[in-house]
Amino acid sequence: MYNPAHFTEADQAQIEALMHDNPLAALVAMTGGGLDANHLPLLRDGEGFLGHVALANPMHEQVADGAPVLAIFRAGQGYVSPNWYPSKAETHKAVPTWNYQVVHVHGRITWSHAEKDKRRAVALLTARHEKAVNGAQAWKMGDAPADFLDDLLGKIVAFLIEVDRIEGKSKLNQNRSAADVAGVAEGLAGQGNAALSAAMRRDGAPKG
Amino acid sequence: MYNPAHFTEADQAQIEALMHDNPLAALVAMTGGGLDANHLPLLRDGEGFLGHVALANPMHEQVADGAPVLAIFRAGQGYVSPNWYPSKAETHKAVPTWNYQVVHVHGRITWSHAEKDKRRAVALLTARHEKAVNGAQAWKMGDAPADFLDDLLGKIVAFLIEVDRIEGKSKLNQNRSAADVAGVAEGLAGQGNAALSAAMRRDGAPKG
Repeated sequence: MYNPAHFTEADQAQIEALMHDNPLAALVAMTGGGLDANHLPLLRDGEGFLGHVALANPMHEQVADGAPVLAIFRAGQGYVSPNWYPSKAETHKAVPTWNYQVVHVHGRITWSHAEKDKRRAVALLTARHEKAVNGAQAWKMGDAPADFLDDLLGKIVAFLIEVDRIEGKSKLNQNRSAADVAGVAEGLAGQGNAALSAAMRRDGAPKG
Repeated sequence: MYNPAHFTEADQAQIEALMHDNPLAALVAMTGGGLDANHLPLLRDGEGFLGHVALANPMHEQVADGAPVLAIFRAGQGYVSPNWYPSKAETHKAVPTWNYQVVHVHGRITWSHAEKDKRRAVALLTARHEKAVNGAQAWKMGDAPADFLDDLLGKIVAFLIEVDRIEGKSKLNQNRSAADVAGVAEGLAGQGNAALSAAMRRDGAPKG
């Protein structure tokens, strides 16, 4: 990814938070049939990432154990009008751009058909997201009939991604003045883009 | 992409609308350095897609003219709790899932350093997005000093993607009952996920 210094996200906590808060990744791999991507919620698991695909998904046959994958996580994004830069009224030296925050995980995938790995992948995913949505009323795997769950576990394949490198990019007008950054945050809020507006206010401070 | 029949988006107008409304694509290619992705707003241009990258972005050197690329567009997405299915209270046969709508464009890229192509890519992008944001007050390229624009045009590379195939996937619980679909739409609305909730109400009708 083209990632100039002023847009490179250096804050590791921010990178982890983006993946935690936006877990649906585009998991990309090269296959014999060309570039392929599947959209899957990934979970941080120690140094790696855990997930699962449907057994019917050919990805686990087309992408070999140890093959490189790229997981793309994306947070808020939006069009930026030059009209939102206060400096534009003075210099007119402004053009449109697009702001966004993304994290790219480059790693190697390993598949597992072992029931314990599949059960763990599903249980951790459920625990993470059910608690956030339903708190004390969170659904638990034990709420479903055992034979129903066994049947479903038979229809998935777990995987682990070992990380080679993680890159974060926060493209938030850090190459402009604080006044321009604030103007864009306001403009985005006016468009109803609360997520990116909040990111601009939090992380869009001018660099260098 | 794994895309079972009940999730395959068959409505071409819906596919075009998703790309129009969510133009920031992850543009993926294989390079000598491995899988690479850049996040770029793409524009429908006749049968293909138009875009541009920074001249400093090595993608235009690492990905040759005619090389395959995958452009991933994503609309609303979110976690789905089994608690939201009315049928769950009766059968308990439900587990969590993730819903989303995506479009994958597989094609071949061609780069252009010609000023007319660069100017066209930028002008069309600006016209499309400025009008949506600012209406009659839309910023126009002519608002910026000519030498400033010439300088910026010298720092970008335009590209065109010729399409091999386009795949749409709308994963919206079409494999469940109308009551379950309505329950998920309501649950998502309760989470503040208006985009996916609206998509469920519009496109989540049970299939086959």
